[in-house]
Amino acid sequence: MDPQTAITGRELILAASAIGAGLAMIAGIGPGIGQGYAAGKAAEAVGRQPEAQGDVIRTMILGQAVAETTGIYGLVIAIILLFVQPLLG
Amino acid sequence: MDPQTAITGRELILAASAIGAGLAMIAGIGPGIGQGYAAGKAAEAVGRQPEAQGDVIRTMILGQAVAETTGIYGLVIAIILLFVQPLLG
Amino acid sequence: MDPQTAITGRELILAASAIGAGLAMIAGIGPGIGQGYAAGKAAEAVGRQPEAQGDVIRTMILGQAVAETTGIYGLVIAIILLFVQPLLG
Repeated sequence: MDPQTAITGRELILAASAIGAGLAMIAGIGPGIGQGYAAGKAAEAVGRQPEAQGDVIRTMILGQAVAETTGIYGLVIAIILLFVQPLLG
Repeated sequence: MDPQTAITGRELILAASAIGAGLAMIAGIGPGIGQGYAAGKAAEAVGRQPEAQGDVIRTMILGQAVAETTGIYGLVIAIILLFVQPLLG
Repeated sequence: MDPQTAITGRELILAASAIGAGLAMIAGIGPGIGQGYAAGKAAEAVGRQPEAQGDVIRTMILGQAVAETTGIYGLVIAIILLFVQPLLG
Protein backbone atom coordinates (compact mmCIF):
# COMPACT_ATOMS: atom_id res chain seq x y z
CA MET A 1 0.00 0.00 0.00
CA ASP A 2 1.28 3.40 -0.89
CA PRO A 3 2.23 5.25 2.32
CA GLN A 4 1.04 8.44 0.64
CA THR A 5 -2.53 7.21 0.40
CA ALA A 6 -2.99 4.69 3.27
CA ILE A 7 -5.14 5.79 6.21
CA THR A 8 -2.96 6.39 9.24
CA GLY A 9 -3.98 5.94 12.85
CA ARG A 10 -3.64 9.67 13.32
CA GLU A 11 -6.18 10.27 10.56
CA LEU A 12 -8.54 7.67 12.03
CA ILE A 13 -8.42 9.52 15.37
CA LEU A 14 -9.17 12.84 13.63
CA ALA A 15 -12.08 11.27 11.74
CA ALA A 16 -13.49 9.88 15.00
CA SER A 17 -13.04 13.32 16.58
CA ALA A 18 -15.34 14.81 13.93
CA ILE A 19 -18.04 12.29 14.85
CA GLY A 20 -17.39 12.80 18.58
CA ALA A 21 -17.73 16.56 18.22
CA GLY A 22 -21.06 16.14 16.45
CA LEU A 23 -22.33 13.74 19.11
CA ALA A 24 -21.35 16.14 21.90
CA MET A 25 -23.60 18.83 20.42
CA ILE A 26 -26.68 16.59 20.82
CA ALA A 27 -26.60 17.66 24.48
CA GLY A 28 -28.13 20.93 23.23
CA ILE A 29 -31.52 19.24 22.97
CA GLY A 30 -31.95 19.52 26.72
CA PRO A 31 -31.33 23.23 27.32
CA GLY A 32 -33.47 24.01 24.26
CA ILE A 33 -36.48 22.18 25.69
CA GLY A 34 -35.94 23.33 29.26
CA GLN A 35 -35.30 26.98 28.51
CA GLY A 36 -38.32 27.06 26.22
CA TYR A 37 -40.46 25.64 29.01
CA ALA A 38 -39.15 28.36 31.34
CA ALA A 39 -39.93 30.98 28.68
CA GLY A 40 -43.49 29.66 28.33
CA LYS A 41 -44.11 29.66 32.06
CA ALA A 42 -42.66 33.16 32.36
CA ALA A 43 -44.87 34.44 29.53
CA GLU A 44 -47.88 32.90 31.28
CA ALA A 45 -46.90 34.50 34.59
CA VAL A 46 -46.41 37.92 32.98
CA GLY A 47 -49.85 37.63 31.36
CA ARG A 48 -51.36 37.10 34.80
CA GLN A 49 -49.28 39.58 36.77
CA PRO A 50 -47.78 42.15 34.38
CA GLU A 51 -46.61 44.17 37.41
CA ALA A 52 -44.34 41.27 38.49
CA GLN A 53 -42.66 41.20 35.07
CA GLY A 54 -39.23 42.24 36.33
CA ASP A 55 -39.11 39.57 39.04
CA VAL A 56 -40.47 36.88 36.72
CA ILE A 57 -37.99 37.62 33.94
CA ARG A 58 -35.08 37.78 36.38
CA THR A 59 -36.02 34.35 37.77
CA MET A 60 -36.44 32.94 34.24
CA ILE A 61 -33.03 34.22 33.08
CA LEU A 62 -31.26 32.94 36.19
CA GLY A 63 -32.84 29.50 35.86
CA GLN A 64 -32.16 29.39 32.11
CA ALA A 65 -28.51 30.23 32.74
CA VAL A 66 -28.18 27.13 34.93
CA ALA A 67 -30.00 25.04 32.28
CA GLU A 68 -27.49 26.27 29.69
CA THR A 69 -24.49 24.69 31.44
CA THR A 70 -24.72 21.16 29.99
CA GLY A 71 -25.08 22.63 26.50
CA ILE A 72 -21.88 24.59 27.12
CA TYR A 73 -20.14 21.43 28.37
CA GLY A 74 -21.00 19.71 25.08
CA LEU A 75 -19.71 22.70 23.13
CA VAL A 76 -16.47 22.74 25.13
CA ILE A 77 -15.85 19.02 24.48
CA ALA A 78 -16.58 19.53 20.76
CA ILE A 79 -14.15 22.45 20.56
CA ILE A 80 -11.50 20.42 22.42
CA LEU A 81 -11.96 17.55 19.96
CA LEU A 82 -11.78 19.87 16.94
CA PHE A 83 -9.02 22.26 17.97
CA VAL A 84 -7.05 20.89 20.95
CA GLN A 85 -7.00 17.30 19.64
CA PRO A 86 -5.74 15.77 22.90
CA LEU A 87 -5.93 12.22 21.52
CA LEU A 88 -3.06 12.83 19.12
CA GLY A 89 0.03 11.80 21.06
CA MET B 1 -4.07 -0.80 -4.81
CA ASP B 2 -4.11 2.16 -7.15
CA PRO B 3 -3.09 5.27 -5.22
CA GLN B 4 -5.52 7.21 -7.39
CA THR B 5 -8.52 5.24 -6.15
CA ALA B 6 -7.56 4.21 -2.59
CA ILE B 7 -9.33 6.02 0.25
CA THR B 8 -6.92 8.45 1.83
CA GLY B 9 -6.93 9.48 5.47
CA ARG B 10 -7.79 12.99 4.39
CA GLU B 11 -10.90 11.68 2.65
CA LEU B 12 -11.85 9.62 5.70
CA ILE B 13 -11.67 12.75 7.87
CA LEU B 14 -13.83 14.67 5.42
CA ALA B 15 -16.37 11.81 5.31
CA ALA B 16 -16.51 11.70 9.12
CA SER B 17 -16.87 15.51 9.18
CA ALA B 18 -20.01 15.15 7.08
CA ILE B 19 -21.46 12.75 9.66
CA GLY B 20 -20.32 14.95 12.56
CA ALA B 21 -21.93 18.03 11.00
CA GLY B 22 -25.21 16.15 10.60
CA LEU B 23 -25.09 14.86 14.18
CA ALA B 24 -24.46 18.36 15.51
CA MET B 25 -27.70 19.58 13.95
CA ILE B 26 -29.75 17.06 15.98
CA ALA B 27 -29.41 19.61 18.80
CA GLY B 28 -32.10 21.58 16.98
CA ILE B 29 -34.76 19.22 18.33
CA GLY B 30 -34.58 20.99 21.68
CA PRO B 31 -35.06 24.65 20.74
CA GLY B 32 -37.81 23.58 18.34
CA ILE B 33 -39.81 21.92 21.09
CA GLY B 34 -39.04 24.49 23.77
CA GLN B 35 -39.71 27.59 21.70
CA GLY B 36 -42.92 26.05 20.41
CA TYR B 37 -44.03 25.45 23.98
CA ALA B 38 -43.23 29.07 24.84
CA ALA B 39 -45.21 30.26 21.81
CA GLY B 40 -48.16 28.14 22.86
CA LYS B 41 -48.14 29.45 26.42
CA ALA B 42 -47.77 33.02 25.21
CA ALA B 43 -50.72 32.59 22.82
CA GLU B 44 -52.76 31.22 25.69
CA ALA B 45 -51.80 34.14 27.94
CA VAL B 46 -52.63 36.74 25.25
CA GLY B 47 -56.01 35.05 24.73
CA ARG B 48 -56.74 35.52 28.44
CA GLN B 49 -55.34 39.03 28.84
CA PRO B 50 -55.18 40.73 25.43
CA GLU B 51 -54.18 43.99 27.11
CA ALA B 52 -50.96 42.34 28.36
CA GLN B 53 -49.99 41.34 24.82
CA GLY B 54 -46.88 43.54 24.63
CA ASP B 55 -45.46 42.26 27.93
CA VAL B 56 -46.26 38.63 27.12
CA ILE B 57 -44.67 38.77 23.67
CA ARG B 58 -41.60 40.55 25.01
CA THR B 59 -41.15 37.85 27.65
CA MET B 60 -41.67 35.09 25.09
CA ILE B 61 -39.13 36.52 22.64
CA LEU B 62 -36.53 37.02 25.38
CA GLY B 63 -36.97 33.47 26.66
CA GLN B 64 -36.98 31.99 23.15
CA ALA B 65 -33.76 33.83 22.32
CA VAL B 66 -32.07 32.05 25.23
CA ALA B 67 -33.57 28.70 24.09
CA GLU B 68 -32.11 29.28 20.61
CA THR B 69 -28.50 29.25 21.81
CA THR B 70 -27.79 25.51 21.82
CA GLY B 71 -29.24 25.22 18.31
CA ILE B 72 -26.82 27.95 17.21
CA TYR B 73 -23.92 26.12 18.87
CA GLY B 74 -24.76 23.01 16.83
CA LEU B 75 -24.94 25.09 13.67
CA VAL B 76 -21.56 26.71 14.40
CA ILE B 77 -19.86 23.34 14.97
CA ALA B 78 -21.40 22.01 11.73
CA ILE B 79 -20.17 25.05 9.77
CA ILE B 80 -16.70 24.67 11.33
CA LEU B 81 -16.60 20.99 10.31
CA LEU B 82 -17.76 21.79 6.78
CA PHE B 83 -15.83 24.95 5.99
CA VAL B 84 -12.99 25.47 8.48
CA GLN B 85 -12.03 21.77 8.49
CA PRO B 86 -9.76 22.09 11.53
CA LEU B 87 -9.06 18.34 11.51
CA LEU B 88 -7.12 18.50 8.26
CA GLY B 89 -3.52 19.20 9.22
CA MET C 1 1.98 -3.22 5.66
CA ASP C 2 4.19 -0.29 6.37
CA PRO C 3 4.43 0.32 10.16
CA GLN C 4 4.53 4.04 9.41
CA THR C 5 1.02 4.01 8.01
CA ALA C 6 -0.79 1.01 9.55
CA ILE C 7 -3.45 1.71 12.14
CA THR C 8 -2.38 0.32 15.49
CA GLY C 9 -4.64 -0.96 18.25
CA ARG C 10 -3.56 1.99 20.36
CA GLU C 11 -4.81 4.39 17.68
CA LEU C 12 -8.09 2.50 17.36
CA ILE C 13 -8.61 2.90 21.11
CA LEU C 14 -7.94 6.65 20.88
CA ALA C 15 -10.36 6.98 17.95
CA ALA C 16 -13.05 5.13 19.90
CA SER C 17 -12.32 7.40 22.88
CA ALA C 18 -13.24 10.44 20.77
CA ILE C 19 -16.61 8.87 19.95
CA GLY C 20 -17.09 7.78 23.57
CA ALA C 21 -16.41 11.31 24.82
CA GLY C 22 -19.03 12.69 22.45
CA LEU C 23 -21.58 10.07 23.50
CA ALA C 24 -21.00 10.86 27.20
CA MET C 25 -22.02 14.48 26.65
CA ILE C 26 -25.50 13.41 25.46
CA ALA C 27 -26.29 12.98 29.16
CA GLY C 28 -26.56 16.77 29.23
CA ILE C 29 -30.04 16.50 27.68
CA GLY C 30 -31.50 15.53 31.04
CA PRO C 31 -30.23 18.36 33.25
CA GLY C 32 -31.10 20.82 30.50
CA ILE C 33 -34.75 19.71 30.45
CA GLY C 34 -35.06 19.31 34.21
CA GLN C 35 -33.39 22.57 35.17
CA GLY C 36 -35.50 24.41 32.63
CA TYR C 37 -38.62 22.88 34.14
CA ALA C 38 -37.48 24.07 37.58
CA ALA C 39 -36.80 27.54 36.17
CA GLY C 40 -40.28 27.67 34.64
CA LYS C 41 -42.00 26.63 37.85
CA ALA C 42 -39.93 29.13 39.82
CA ALA C 43 -40.88 31.93 37.40
CA GLU C 44 -44.53 30.92 37.82
CA ALA C 45 -44.22 30.93 41.64
CA VAL C 46 -42.49 34.33 41.67
CA GLY C 47 -45.28 35.72 39.49
CA ARG C 48 -47.82 34.59 42.08
CA GLN C 49 -45.90 35.55 45.21
CA PRO C 50 -43.26 38.14 44.31
CA GLU C 51 -42.53 38.64 48.03
CA ALA C 52 -41.35 34.98 48.26
CA GLN C 53 -38.81 35.50 45.47
CA GLY C 54 -35.74 34.87 47.63
CA ASP C 55 -37.05 31.57 48.97
CA VAL C 56 -38.27 30.45 45.55
CA ILE C 57 -34.94 31.19 43.85
CA ARG C 58 -32.96 29.53 46.64
CA THR C 59 -35.10 26.40 46.29
CA MET C 60 -34.74 26.43 42.50
CA ILE C 61 -30.94 26.78 42.60
CA LEU C 62 -30.57 24.00 45.17
CA GLY C 63 -32.74 21.65 43.11
CA GLN C 64 -30.98 22.57 39.90
CA ALA C 65 -27.60 21.85 41.51
CA VAL C 66 -28.75 18.28 42.19
CA ALA C 67 -30.10 17.97 38.63
CA GLU C 68 -26.71 19.09 37.30
CA THR C 69 -24.86 16.07 38.69
CA THR C 70 -25.45 13.61 35.83
CA GLY C 71 -24.31 16.23 33.33
CA ILE C 72 -21.10 16.62 35.35
CA TYR C 73 -20.65 12.83 35.41
CA GLY C 74 -20.80 12.78 31.61
CA LEU C 75 -18.29 15.64 31.44
CA VAL C 76 -15.91 13.89 33.84
CA ILE C 77 -15.98 10.66 31.80
CA ALA C 78 -15.40 12.62 28.59
CA ILE C 79 -12.42 14.45 30.13
CA ILE C 80 -11.00 11.15 31.42
CA LEU C 81 -11.34 9.60 27.94
CA LEU C 82 -9.68 12.60 26.29
CA PHE C 83 -6.93 13.44 28.74
CA VAL C 84 -6.31 10.55 31.16
CA GLN C 85 -6.72 7.85 28.48
CA PRO C 86 -6.98 4.97 30.97
CA LEU C 87 -7.59 2.42 28.19
CA LEU C 88 -4.02 2.67 26.97
CA GLY C 89 -2.02 0.10 28.89
